[in-house]
Amino acid sequence: MRFDVLVEVSPREGVADPQGQTIERSLPALGFGGVAGVRVGKAIRFEVTSESEDAARAEVEDMCARFLTNPVIEDSSVSLTARP
Amino acid sequence: MRFDVLVEVSPREGVADPQGQTIERSLPALGFGGVAGVRVGKAIRFEVTSESEDAARAEVEDMCARFLTNPVIEDSSVSLTARP
Repeated sequence: MRFDVLVEVSPREGVADPQGQTIERSLPALGFGGVAGVRVGKAIRFEVTSESEDAARAEVEDMCARFLTNPVIEDSSVSLTARP
Repeated sequence: MRFDVLVEVSPREGVADPQGQTIERSLPALGFGGVAGVRVGKAIRFEVTSESEDAARAEVEDMCARFLTNPVIEDSSVSLTARP
């Protein structure tokens, strides 16, 4: 089976997010009000082939823990969509 | 009304994505097979206050066009979720 995968890697609560702070400070000067809590992370998309959704999810979570994220300062969330 | 917003900024088709290529080349060496088409983009999350979902979406799309993305080399997708 083939799956479309989205891994979203985001800075943990309490970890500084200079990109997010820069965006949040700049938006009012461009005329955009009412924006709060800007956080900037990574969106990693790919396809994976696996024999089941559970096996694919386990493999992707292992990739996150070992390679795609820094677990000390980042959280990750995985979403999988089976391909027709 | 308040909305949780996710803006996903990704490199356009045909634009080089060195981060994605580096990840794709490294995964087999770590024992992860069956992965293809790795693309790395940004996931920008924030809250926005607006009088309606349409107004919020229009404002966020304007932010994307004018500030959050480089329309020449990047695409963006916006998802909004109303807060209770």
